[in-house]
Amino acid sequence: MKIAVFGTGTVGPAVAAALAKLGHDVVIGTRDPQDTPARTQAGPMGGVPFAQWHAEHSGIAVATFADAAAGSDLIVNATNGSGSLAALDAAGAANLAGKVVMDIANPLDFSRGFPPSLDPVNTDSLGEQIQRTFPDARVVKTLNTMNAAIMVDPASVAGGDHSVFVSGNDADAKTVVAGLLAELGHRDIIDLGDITTARGTEMLLPIWLRLWGALGNADFNFKIAR
Amino acid sequence: MKIAVFGTGTVGPAVAAALAKLGHDVVIGTRDPQDTPARTQAGPMGGVPFAQWHAEHSGIAVATFADAAAGSDLIVNATNGSGSLAALDAAGAANLAGKVVMDIANPLDFSRGFPPSLDPVNTDSLGEQIQRTFPDARVVKTLNTMNAAIMVDPASVAGGDHSVFVSGNDADAKTVVAGLLAELGHRDIIDLGDITTARGTEMLLPIWLRLWGALGNADFNFKIAR
Repeated sequence: MKIAVFGTGTVGPAVAAALAKLGHDVVIGTRDPQDTPARTQAGPMGGVPFAQWHAEHSGIAVATFADAAAGSDLIVNATNGSGSLAALDAAGAANLAGKVVMDIANPLDFSRGFPPSLDPVNTDSLGEQIQRTFPDARVVKTLNTMNAAIMVDPASVAGGDHSVFVSGNDADAKTVVAGLLAELGHRDIIDLGDITTARGTEMLLPIWLRLWGALGNADFNFKIAR
Repeated sequence: MKIAVFGTGTVGPAVAAALAKLGHDVVIGTRDPQDTPARTQAGPMGGVPFAQWHAEHSGIAVATFADAAAGSDLIVNATNGSGSLAALDAAGAANLAGKVVMDIANPLDFSRGFPPSLDPVNTDSLGEQIQRTFPDARVVKTLNTMNAAIMVDPASVAGGDHSVFVSGNDADAKTVVAGLLAELGHRDIIDLGDITTARGTEMLLPIWLRLWGALGNADFNFKIAR
């Protein structure tokens, strides 16, 4: 599948590399495709600089949000939640129309310090905001409830015995996303319902952040025991 | 231990019966101890009427919130979240001072229909409200992330292989609560930190409610796979 991954932080490159390794035709979407590949400062979580990552993944092109989306069948939104609508706006509604937008971002609000709160929250979600803003896109919220390493290698924790959620209004789009999740190794894929159920998965972030503190690392995931 | 359980819905009687069966000296706290035991309408979730439940559990006394709290070492708040502060206020700050208040309620707001939202949420929690309102009580938030049947019989789901959380400012109080949780059969008790971490467990409710819909029953629980 032709896939555009938006976001050049920790999550975007991890997902892009994993999907490329699976044989997909992957392009990274970014604001400034001239500047991004030259970036030599460490990533936000101490990851390798983008320039180094890109040298190791030279088969993955870097393009503007608009060009990346225009040439792809599916767009992964792995930007910061606070910048997601702007990035998708830069891509252009016409380039998203009819396509699957796999939203894996979280609307974390760091304006009041750590731990961040959520904005929107409770009666709205980032997933819903994206679907409302781009009504012709087929938005599926998923993967936002675990760290990037587990997203792309679920077996790395508890042998893969944990859960991932999908939320969205379009059943076919959810089937496409579930297929990608299965390719990545996810075994327990739970369809929560329409895009309003993204409130639930985004609202997992506060306990996720506190578990990170309590357990001392982020190598954990939610499993729905039943 | 002398334990007062506040709340006569689905959760309170289930917890009271389980703690009494373990040998604790349990009293139910309610607004009107004359009226409650005479109640013959079905419970809110279709459970047995309180009168029938009480006939089957005649060893458990029913008293006012104040009398129940005054005679107990530990108070379980299993009231509706919207009525929790009023119930604890009726108990009286003096009767809560120095005692462990095990808060297992959720601040669900049904004013906008189903699914309910949360109030407070995100930058506050019911657990924190209770601790702020009764600063001499030792509040521990726990058990609010699963249904009543699993609270008191964790082995009934996935052989008990799932998690329960504790949040609170008082380490000794959390040790007392963890002891009760272990008596009930909980094996993976995760101390998230101070009472502000109750935001995280209360914010699990939106996905809990949607999982209930997606799975068709409430016989599931969160496990932190790691």
